[in-house]
Amino acid sequence: MKEVAIIGATGYTGAELLRLLANHEKVNVTYITSRKEAGKHVFKIHPHLKGIEKYKDLYFTGDVDKVEADLIFTATPHGASMDIVPDFIERGMKVIDLSGDYRFEDLSLYEKYYKIKHKGLPETKIAYGLPELHREEIKKAQLVANPGCFPTGAILAVAPLVKEGIIEERIIFDSKTGVSGAGVNPTEITHFPNVNENINPYKITTHRHTPEIEKELKKLGKAKVSFTPHLAPITRGILTTAHTFLAKDVDREEIIKVYEKFYKDEFFVRIFSEEIPKLTWVRGTNFCDIGGFEIDEHNRLVVISAIDNLVKGASGQAIQNMNIMFGFDEKEGLFEVGLNP
Amino acid sequence: MKEVAIIGATGYTGAELLRLLANHEKVNVTYITSRKEAGKHVFKIHPHLKGIEKYKDLYFTGDVDKVEADLIFTATPHGASMDIVPDFIERGMKVIDLSGDYRFEDLSLYEKYYKIKHKGLPETKIAYGLPELHREEIKKAQLVANPGCFPTGAILAVAPLVKEGIIEERIIFDSKTGVSGAGVNPTEITHFPNVNENINPYKITTHRHTPEIEKELKKLGKAKVSFTPHLAPITRGILTTAHTFLAKDVDREEIIKVYEKFYKDEFFVRIFSEEIPKLTWVRGTNFCDIGGFEIDEHNRLVVISAIDNLVKGASGQAIQNMNIMFGFDEKEGLFEVGLNP
Amino acid sequence: MKEVAIIGATGYTGAELLRLLANHEKVNVTYITSRKEAGKHVFKIHPHLKGIEKYKDLYFTGDVDKVEADLIFTATPHGASMDIVPDFIERGMKVIDLSGDYRFEDLSLYEKYYKIKHKGLPETKIAYGLPELHREEIKKAQLVANPGCFPTGAILAVAPLVKEGIIEERIIFDSKTGVSGAGVNPTEITHFPNVNENINPYKITTHRHTPEIEKELKKLGKAKVSFTPHLAPITRGILTTAHTFLAKDVDREEIIKVYEKFYKDEFFVRIFSEEIPKLTWVRGTNFCDIGGFEIDEHNRLVVISAIDNLVKGASGQAIQNMNIMFGFDEKEGLFEVGLNP
Amino acid sequence: MKEVAIIGATGYTGAELLRLLANHEKVNVTYITSRKEAGKHVFKIHPHLKGIEKYKDLYFTGDVDKVEADLIFTATPHGASMDIVPDFIERGMKVIDLSGDYRFEDLSLYEKYYKIKHKGLPETKIAYGLPELHREEIKKAQLVANPGCFPTGAILAVAPLVKEGIIEERIIFDSKTGVSGAGVNPTEITHFPNVNENINPYKITTHRHTPEIEKELKKLGKAKVSFTPHLAPITRGILTTAHTFLAKDVDREEIIKVYEKFYKDEFFVRIFSEEIPKLTWVRGTNFCDIGGFEIDEHNRLVVISAIDNLVKGASGQAIQNMNIMFGFDEKEGLFEVGLNP
Repeated sequence: MKEVAIIGATGYTGAELLRLLANHEKVNVTYITSRKEAGKHVFKIHPHLKGIEKYKDLYFTGDVDKVEADLIFTATPHGASMDIVPDFIERGMKVIDLSGDYRFEDLSLYEKYYKIKHKGLPETKIAYGLPELHREEIKKAQLVANPGCFPTGAILAVAPLVKEGIIEERIIFDSKTGVSGAGVNPTEITHFPNVNENINPYKITTHRHTPEIEKELKKLGKAKVSFTPHLAPITRGILTTAHTFLAKDVDREEIIKVYEKFYKDEFFVRIFSEEIPKLTWVRGTNFCDIGGFEIDEHNRLVVISAIDNLVKGASGQAIQNMNIMFGFDEKEGLFEVGLNP
Repeated sequence: MKEVAIIGATGYTGAELLRLLANHEKVNVTYITSRKEAGKHVFKIHPHLKGIEKYKDLYFTGDVDKVEADLIFTATPHGASMDIVPDFIERGMKVIDLSGDYRFEDLSLYEKYYKIKHKGLPETKIAYGLPELHREEIKKAQLVANPGCFPTGAILAVAPLVKEGIIEERIIFDSKTGVSGAGVNPTEITHFPNVNENINPYKITTHRHTPEIEKELKKLGKAKVSFTPHLAPITRGILTTAHTFLAKDVDREEIIKVYEKFYKDEFFVRIFSEEIPKLTWVRGTNFCDIGGFEIDEHNRLVVISAIDNLVKGASGQAIQNMNIMFGFDEKEGLFEVGLNP
Repeated sequence: MKEVAIIGATGYTGAELLRLLANHEKVNVTYITSRKEAGKHVFKIHPHLKGIEKYKDLYFTGDVDKVEADLIFTATPHGASMDIVPDFIERGMKVIDLSGDYRFEDLSLYEKYYKIKHKGLPETKIAYGLPELHREEIKKAQLVANPGCFPTGAILAVAPLVKEGIIEERIIFDSKTGVSGAGVNPTEITHFPNVNENINPYKITTHRHTPEIEKELKKLGKAKVSFTPHLAPITRGILTTAHTFLAKDVDREEIIKVYEKFYKDEFFVRIFSEEIPKLTWVRGTNFCDIGGFEIDEHNRLVVISAIDNLVKGASGQAIQNMNIMFGFDEKEGLFEVGLNP
Repeated sequence: MKEVAIIGATGYTGAELLRLLANHEKVNVTYITSRKEAGKHVFKIHPHLKGIEKYKDLYFTGDVDKVEADLIFTATPHGASMDIVPDFIERGMKVIDLSGDYRFEDLSLYEKYYKIKHKGLPETKIAYGLPELHREEIKKAQLVANPGCFPTGAILAVAPLVKEGIIEERIIFDSKTGVSGAGVNPTEITHFPNVNENINPYKITTHRHTPEIEKELKKLGKAKVSFTPHLAPITRGILTTAHTFLAKDVDREEIIKVYEKFYKDEFFVRIFSEEIPKLTWVRGTNFCDIGGFEIDEHNRLVVISAIDNLVKGASGQAIQNMNIMFGFDEKEGLFEVGLNP
C-alpha cells in the first residue's frame, strides 16, 4: 500500500479524489489539509463520505509542512501550488499538481494568462499529465502537472487530426461546462438564479485554457486555437464542440479510422462512430467519449467530446497519473460506469 | 379591431400567440383550430390562460375551411401549411405562416433540406418576415413567411458584419436552444432524463436552418454558413455564439459602432457593449440582445445573440409582422420586460 | 399620474417592481435607492430593463432621506425597514413594506422568530396586505405590510376551509420554493451545485413564516400550523401542498363550491376543479392557482396552491395593494399571462 | 461465479442492474432480454456501458423461455411479471421481481390499487425485499418482491418510530421524486418543458405505493398512511418528508438514539444527527440517509430520508437482496460513494 496526501481537500477536486480513492485498493490517504477546517473530521466537511471505513480516522490538518507521503496531490489554487510544491519535491516525494502552475514550459505564457508572477520550475522531471499523449514522460516524472479540464476534452478531441495533418491550422473550440468547474465557493457566477435557464458565455476570447490547448496541439502539428467556454445549468461535465476545417480530401470513415488507430490502446478514450456522446454517459467516470465526425458543405469537420470535468478533467486523471507513476494498473480505482441517466 | 385566426393552436407557438395577443389592444382572436381538440374550450387545453376575459368564448374548431379573418396565423407543421395557405390567399386574407414552407425563394433548397415535395408558391407578394431586414416588403406582402428560430438569432447576430464586408465568408454558428423549440409532443429527445444534466448536439452539420441562414446573409454580402445546434436543459431561449473571422483591420469599438448604426431604429434589437447577453433578460420578450464583440489572437471575432425562441424566434416576431402588415405600432402587444431571473 | 419610490431596488423584489411598473399606466417611478450602487443608471444594474423609455433617466440614489413620493415601496431587509418607514409615515406618505417588520400585531412573535428587537409600530393605520382577506383595511391604511411569500400561498390555500370550520385545527404545509426567494446575494445555499439535482428541506420546524401563517388563519377560525419549506432547483414559484384533515362530512364537490364562493370576486385567485396547478401557469403573474381538493382514506384533504414568489408572493401583491390604496383598477399593471412553458 | 439473467433490460432499472453488476466480482450476467431489441448488442442500447470487458459478448434475446440462470431479475412492468415468474420458480431458479406483482400478501389490495386481476402467488417462499426489516426471510426465500421506490424511503424513515410506538397512527409522507422513476419511455408527464421549473404533485391521494407503505408499517405497529408524491425537475432521487405526531414525551436526542439503535447493524442506512440529508449524497449509491428529527410547537416530528430511486429504490436493493440470497457480503458490488456534487 502506498500512502498519499491531499493538500487542499475541502474543494470539489479534493472531495473527488477522496471519492475515487475510497475504492482504490493500493493506496491509503494519510493526510488531508485545510487551513480553515483543521481539526475537523472528513465526514463533517464531506458528509457523503460517511460510512467509509477507510476514512474513519481521517481528520483535516492545517500543517502542510508536516505532511509526508509517497505522493502528494496538491489541489490548491493557481499561484498557491508553487509555494508548496518545491518543498515536497526537494524532500523527494512525488507530486501531482492540479493547479495551472506547472502546466507551461514557457512561463511567460503562464504569467500572461494567469496574471501571476511565476516563481520558477523545480529542478526535477516534470510531465504534462495527459496520459494519452505523455505516458512515458509521466512514468519518469517526479512532478506531474495535471491538465486543465477544458484542455483535456479539447486536446483529445482533435489530437489525431492535428497529428495526421488532416485539418487546417485554425481550430475553434466551443465548450459547455458544468458549474462544478467553478469550484466550491459561491459567487455571482454560480448563484442558482443566474445560471438556471441560461447558457452563459464567459471570457469568450481570453480564457487561460486557450494557450494550454494550443501549446499541446502544437507539439503534434499545426494549430491556431480559438476557444470560447460557456457555463451551462448542469453540475458536472464538459461538452466540447470542435469546429475544424479539412485540409485534405478525406471522408468520414477514414477520419474515424484515424481516431480508432490513434486511441486503440487507450481504455479511457471511447470512439463512437454512430452515436453523439452524452455527458451522462461519462458522469462519474474517467472516460473521454468522442464522436460526431461529420463534414458539412463548407469543408467543416465537427468533432464532439464529453468528459466529467471533475474526473477525467481533474481528479480521475490525477489518479490515472498516479497509477502510471506507481506502476499500478492504470484503471485501478477508476473503473466506474457512467451514472446514466 | 382586426380579427385574427390561429390554425393549429394547441402547440407552443399557438399558445404563445394567444398569450401575447391577450394584451393586444387592436386585435381579437376569433378562431382557433385543432383537429384533435375540436369543440374544447381554450382554457381546457391551455389552463394558464384561464381568467382572460377576451378568450372566455373561444373554442377550438376542427373546420379550417370555414375560418375567416383579417389575418391568419398558420402554426402548422412543415409541409402542412402549403396545403391550407393557398386557399386563404385566394380568398384575399393576409397570412403569416410559422412553418418553413414559404421561407425559400429557391424551392429546391427547401426540398433538399425538408425532404418534402413543394407544391409551389401562391401568386401574391411574399416576404421573409424578419422586420429588421425586410420591413418594407413585409408592409406590402399578403403572405409572410415567419423566420425559423435559429435563423432569427443567427442572422441578426452577424448581419451588420456581412453587410459591411468586415468578415471572411466563413461563419460558424454554435447555437444552444431550449427544449420548447422541439414542440409540445414528447419524444425521446425531450424526455427529461435525456435532456437534464446534458448538452446534446444534434444534426450537427445537416440542420435545415443552415440554408435559411445562408441565403439571407448572402442577400447582404458574402457568407458560407456552418451551423451546429445543441439542445440545452432549459425551456426557453436560443443563445447563439457566432465565430467569425476579420477580413478588415477594425477594432472592438468600431465594430460596436457598426452594430449601433445598423440597428439604431430597431426597438427589438438591443446592443450591449459591455455585458454578455443572458437568456433570462429576453425571456418572454421580443428582444434580440446582441453582445460580445471580442477579437482573439487569431483574428476571430465572437458575437453573442440571445432570443426567446417562442417570442422573437416565433410568435412574437409573427405579431411584430402582423403589426407591420396592419400599420399598427410595431410594439403593440409585445412590450413586456424580460422575466429575469 | 402618481409618483412612487423604491427603497432598496437592487434586489429581486425591487427589480420585479420595476419590471411590473414598466407597464403600469398610472404610476411613475421617480426614485430608486441603493447605498452600494448610488449614481449608477438602472440599466447598468438591471440590464434586462434596457430600452424602457419610462426608465431612461432613472439613476440610483444613496440618499434615502431626500426621497419623496406619493407612495414608497420599502424593499429593505428585515430589521432595516423599521429604521426608515416611520419617517416616511410621519411625512405623510403611503408606504408598502415588503419586509417582515410590520406583519405582526403581536411584536413578541416577531422578536421571537426574527431574533430582532422591534422598535415599535408607527401610529397610523396599518394593514396586512393580503387583499383577498383584508381589502377594506388596505384601502384605509397608510402603511401596508406586504405578506411573506410562503404565507401568501399557504393562507390562500386553506382560508375557506378554516373559515367554514371544515377541517381540524392541525394543518401541515409542505412547501417547495424556487431559489429567487433566497435573494440576489450568493450563498452556499444558493450555490448551483448545492441546489441542482437536490430538493433541500430547511428550517424544517422553525421557519419564521410559520407564525405569520398561523396568526392570519386564526383570524378566520381554528388553526395550529405546522410548516416545512424545501428549496427546489427552480428559479421562481412556490408550490404549497396543504395536508388538512376533515372535521366534517363533506365531499370533494362541496369543498370546491366553498372555494368558488369564497373567491368568487377575486380575479387573482383561480380555482381549478380538475387540473392540478402548475408553477409555470402562474410564472410572471399575480395569480394564485388553487386545486387538488382530494380526500384520502384517512380523512386527509389535500389542497395545492401555486404562486410566483416574486409576484403574488412579493412585488405583484405590493402593486395590487398600491392599486387598492390609490383606488385604481386592482389589475392595472398586473394583467400578464403566465409564461408557460 | 453465479450466473444471473435480467428480464426486460432496456429500461432504467435493467440498465442500473447492468451498471452495478459490472463491478460485482461474484456474478456474471448471462442473459438480458427484450422483445423489441432482440439480437442487438448491449452497448447499442446502453452506450454508456461501452468498454466493459465483462459485457463484450452480451446480446439481447427475445426468448424468455430459454433463459436459465442461478437467479433471475424480472425488471418487467406490473402485471407482466406474474406471467413469467411462476415458470422460473417451477424450474427451481431464484427470482427477484422488481415489479409490484409480489409485494402484497393480500392480493385484493394489489387488485384495488393496480387495477389488474392477480393470477395468484406461486407456492414457494416469498419475501418482501427490504433487508433492513426482512433479512431473515430474504435469506430463505426463492422469490423476493423488491420494494417500490417510494416505500423504501418512506418505510425506513419512520420504522423505528412505529416500532417503538413513539408516534400517533397518522403519518403523512410528502415525497419528491426524480423523473427517472417514471421510466425510460417519454410521456407528457416526462416532457422536459412540463417538468422543468415545476414541482408537479400527482396521484395526490391515490398512489399505489400508499398501501404498500401502510401494510409494511402495520407489521411494526400502528399506522394510518397518507402519501402524496411530487415530480421534481431532477433525474435521480427521492426525498421524503415524513410529518409525524408525537404520542410520547420524548426529545430530539432520545429519538436519534432510537434510530441509531434500530439501524446500528445496517451499513446502507446512515443516520445524520446534525445535517439534513441531500439527494446528491446518495446519488448512485445504495444508501438511505435519514435526518431531520425536529419537533415543532404542535408536537409534529419531522424526519427526512433520501435515496437514489434507481439504486436503493430499485436495482441496488435488488442486488443487496441477491447478495443475501447467495450468502455474499451484502455490500458486494454496491460500495460506491455518492456522486456529490
